[in-house]
Amino acid sequence: MPKVALLISDGFEEIEAVTLIDVLRRADIDVVVAGLDGETVVGGHGIRMQVDTNIDQIRVDEFDGVVLPGGAPNAEALRDDDRAQQVLKAAAASDKFLCALCAAPIALERAGVLEGKRATSYPGFELPTAEYVSDRVVEDGKVITSRGPGTAMEFALTLVRRFVGHVKATELRQRMLVKN
Amino acid sequence: MPKVALLISDGFEEIEAVTLIDVLRRADIDVVVAGLDGETVVGGHGIRMQVDTNIDQIRVDEFDGVVLPGGAPNAEALRDDDRAQQVLKAAAASDKFLCALCAAPIALERAGVLEGKRATSYPGFELPTAEYVSDRVVEDGKVITSRGPGTAMEFALTLVRRFVGHVKATELRQRMLVKN
Repeated sequence: MPKVALLISDGFEEIEAVTLIDVLRRADIDVVVAGLDGETVVGGHGIRMQVDTNIDQIRVDEFDGVVLPGGAPNAEALRDDDRAQQVLKAAAASDKFLCALCAAPIALERAGVLEGKRATSYPGFELPTAEYVSDRVVEDGKVITSRGPGTAMEFALTLVRRFVGHVKATELRQRMLVKN
Repeated sequence: MPKVALLISDGFEEIEAVTLIDVLRRADIDVVVAGLDGETVVGGHGIRMQVDTNIDQIRVDEFDGVVLPGGAPNAEALRDDDRAQQVLKAAAASDKFLCALCAAPIALERAGVLEGKRATSYPGFELPTAEYVSDRVVEDGKVITSRGPGTAMEFALTLVRRFVGHVKATELRQRMLVKN
């Protein structure tokens, strides 16, 4: 069973985080939601959600990838938190998947893992070391980035395709009634 | 400011509930999340979310509408809970909006508010008194229904259009980067 760590903090974008957790778990991917502080996080629109563990408990070698939802305050926290940055650098060093949505690619940028990579973000969140692309979902090797709440479902299904396979992604797309 | 009560219980579909809460709050609609029991609810994919209040506190005359996310266990609870049924009947009697997604239209069906109305649901959840339609979002007067996680964004934006207006719905669609 593939296993990913989803890093999250206050101000996260709720549609993005929940779409990722929900869709990946539908694909039988083990999603561990790791907060920066405390047992709950509050999203940008007031939704309070319980986390599974704290980032201090994350051992990168137990995971196949790291996933970052957006929301500007959350993305900035993931960019500025030393533990989050260590997790991202360790994941890159051991060739894990690095997946970020909306504003969160700025945390990958800070970790130095986007250099020369094709990547995207929510408009206005610059990625100076990347080769910036405006596609809705951008894959460059194991770096996968996307743009906002309205691209969260496409992003999540792309991760299912990469972690599990095309058949499962197509099955989920149909069962959830996602528009083609 | 429009105000809606979102009724929810364990087994709710997380993408659906959170997309509704998030998008309606982006439109400055006051969304009160009312649980059937306790201070938190656990979704069908293990996400634990805090509610704002208990259904016992809901006075229908303070609201412009009632919104029901799906998830089969949640929809069945809303169908079988006397308080939820009373809220739905009172809302219908005072011409409030009745909005339900995925499996949740079965709770509207039980309340007797779909009779002769055009409505939809997740495939397989039958609505014997309604005029069943397979469109992704179906509006018949103040009854608005939709089909599943993959239609949640379209459903939420339809509610924004009806509660606030077309301009706000279009603005949010663009800002969230929703595909046309």
